[in-house]
Amino acid sequence: MSDNIKQQMLTIGQQAKQAYQVLAIADTELKNKGLITAAQLIRDNQADIIAANKLDMQFGRDKGLTPALLDRLELNQQRIEAIAKGLEDVAQLPDPVNKILASWDRPNGLKISRVTVPLGVIGVIYESRPNVTADAAGLCLKSGNAVILRGGSESFNSSTALVKTMHDALNQVGLPTACIQLVPTRDRAAVGEMLTMVDYIDIIVPRGGKGLTERVQEQSKIPTIQHLDGNCHTYIHASADVEKAVSVVYNAKMRRTGICGATESLVVDKTIAPIILPKLLDKLSDVDCVAKGEQEAIDIDNRIQQVNEDDWGTEYLDKVISIKLCDSLNQAVTHVNKYSSGHTEAIIAEDKNAAVEFIRQVDSAIVMHNTSTQFADGGEFGMGAEIGISTGRLHARGPVGVDQLVTYKYAVYGDGQVRN
Amino acid sequence: MSDNIKQQMLTIGQQAKQAYQVLAIADTELKNKGLITAAQLIRDNQADIIAANKLDMQFGRDKGLTPALLDRLELNQQRIEAIAKGLEDVAQLPDPVNKILASWDRPNGLKISRVTVPLGVIGVIYESRPNVTADAAGLCLKSGNAVILRGGSESFNSSTALVKTMHDALNQVGLPTACIQLVPTRDRAAVGEMLTMVDYIDIIVPRGGKGLTERVQEQSKIPTIQHLDGNCHTYIHASADVEKAVSVVYNAKMRRTGICGATESLVVDKTIAPIILPKLLDKLSDVDCVAKGEQEAIDIDNRIQQVNEDDWGTEYLDKVISIKLCDSLNQAVTHVNKYSSGHTEAIIAEDKNAAVEFIRQVDSAIVMHNTSTQFADGGEFGMGAEIGISTGRLHARGPVGVDQLVTYKYAVYGDGQVRN
Repeated sequence: MSDNIKQQMLTIGQQAKQAYQVLAIADTELKNKGLITAAQLIRDNQADIIAANKLDMQFGRDKGLTPALLDRLELNQQRIEAIAKGLEDVAQLPDPVNKILASWDRPNGLKISRVTVPLGVIGVIYESRPNVTADAAGLCLKSGNAVILRGGSESFNSSTALVKTMHDALNQVGLPTACIQLVPTRDRAAVGEMLTMVDYIDIIVPRGGKGLTERVQEQSKIPTIQHLDGNCHTYIHASADVEKAVSVVYNAKMRRTGICGATESLVVDKTIAPIILPKLLDKLSDVDCVAKGEQEAIDIDNRIQQVNEDDWGTEYLDKVISIKLCDSLNQAVTHVNKYSSGHTEAIIAEDKNAAVEFIRQVDSAIVMHNTSTQFADGGEFGMGAEIGISTGRLHARGPVGVDQLVTYKYAVYGDGQVRN
Repeated sequence: MSDNIKQQMLTIGQQAKQAYQVLAIADTELKNKGLITAAQLIRDNQADIIAANKLDMQFGRDKGLTPALLDRLELNQQRIEAIAKGLEDVAQLPDPVNKILASWDRPNGLKISRVTVPLGVIGVIYESRPNVTADAAGLCLKSGNAVILRGGSESFNSSTALVKTMHDALNQVGLPTACIQLVPTRDRAAVGEMLTMVDYIDIIVPRGGKGLTERVQEQSKIPTIQHLDGNCHTYIHASADVEKAVSVVYNAKMRRTGICGATESLVVDKTIAPIILPKLLDKLSDVDCVAKGEQEAIDIDNRIQQVNEDDWGTEYLDKVISIKLCDSLNQAVTHVNKYSSGHTEAIIAEDKNAAVEFIRQVDSAIVMHNTSTQFADGGEFGMGAEIGISTGRLHARGPVGVDQLVTYKYAVYGDGQVRN
């Protein structure tokens, strides 16, 4: 059985490498035609896809999935339209491949340029939502990367139906179907196998909860795009506009509490805290959001509950916010750099110099001024769809869209030069 | 003992993180002053450094190091001058930090920019040459990264003396000495410990032979800049100028056989092989370079010896070259992509279209036209000193200089925007 999976995965890896050789040098028009055809065929095949999804929904109910998870799993006409539209949107993006990043001449006459090329074969490991199957496949196709998809076991039938449809599209336009492959088994041994296939997979992208991403990162022998937690901070500087601060913090915390860009902790300058906190607590109490702080904060507003040391490092993903009072910008920066997960932080300040200093000193992927950390998103940044948000420091930081799914090569043109 | 090393390494890691917070935002002038002062103090202290090196040389002789390795280990006045000059050269390079890579406005008024920042804490693990201690420290200082250096046990005293001198320079200019730390023990357990310090080290750069780099890559829990073998190919197209081809191939193979950019395998179009091979073999035979090929090649020139399948994947680093005949550019590309280690390849051709096609299709970090693969070097590319040449696909590919030792952050300026 396990030998069987080993062999199966090896075949998938070999096919991916071969398909990559073709896809890497496919021209923009062909890749876009593949995406647009896939979108159309997904619309045409929606009855089959929904039928496959019904099997998954039954499997999920039998497994006792929560209503929230079942909702994430479900495909209907509207969601299938969104999937198709997503592929068309990716087709509209500029091709990230074959872009000249820099070029220069050397004194000996060599002409050197740095040109973008695809990363290679990408392994995507994700949880239940079946739309990730099409999104990830679309982003990889556009960026010239072959992809090996390993979805959640709950979405197995839906993903299979989507990939089958995309294969029809690849066939129609004349691209190898192995550009997009789905691991054809629910067996978890396949994931373990994937993570060791250093000769066939160039990068692993885990997409899902903390449990999944941590396990992948720990076990993978292949470099990964890290997407860990978003313990985001908003810092209210002494110079902040009070109304703006309350409105932005409320949005940063409450717009959607379950996303990685949600603010989990507030840092407030002591001089402005007595004005800000009561106004903010009024709004947060209305929506049953719990605020936690130290005695000094509780003394300002007794709706604040006692905080523990553990709170500072916690990504609540819930209607809870921790509040730290501080004496200075430097103290705020030190607190943020100590407890942040390096995802997104913001400063609210009318003093522009304070904002510049905070952005310079805070060591996170995204640092914002006078706006909501919930904007931390590839789409909101105008980068198109994203395959994840990287909290790692290597290769890509922040939203990972098609422009981050490439590497580069050097092209060097000479005329017989030899090295001394 | 092992607990002791664990604690020692933990302290080093914590100190590096703290120093990084200061160094990351140090201005260009201060970093350059540190480099120039270090160069001067190294010149001033050369008697002490050479005395320390003499201890290493004795240790090396007692250990039975080969004359070649002893030569790599030795420091003399000329080599110390080269080390000092190297630091001054790094000071002259543009600062890679705080460069705006891109900036744009969003329809909602958010102003977004992508700005370079240092990678963080870099761990460099290298073999005997003590000059790497100063080179790596200089490149990291310039790029705002704290560095933890783990040199070969043979160069322990020399490296200690160099780092002590650089600490004096850091003290003089007011930067934390922990910007540059040397692991203060020869115990190999320290390397194992380093490779697991995910909370304190952001990236590992192994610099040395295949044994070292493979072991580091296999054991490291921290992302690494891969620097594996250079199984480089030169392809002679049917349109090649014969004299140019012979001269470039001779240089690519023989200038220095022991470097990763040396050509190890020649691919020759069958139509031109009968003209090229005898001329090339004349030159190679003069310097006792062995050529290996299949029967078809031997039939053209019987100085060619029988090749084995293993030869195609072998990095000889010696006076040996394998020769593959092929029918077409496509066949040559397929052969190269199959056996190459992804480092550097070249095509010799007067047909420019063939060159463009080869460069497009060959999936290596560096692909050259009409020049010697021995030019694969950061200095020759005009990028300044390099810490290695990456054969990995993530983050950096090809020469890794100061511009590759950075990542980026997004700075987002708003005026109270909240997300819908």
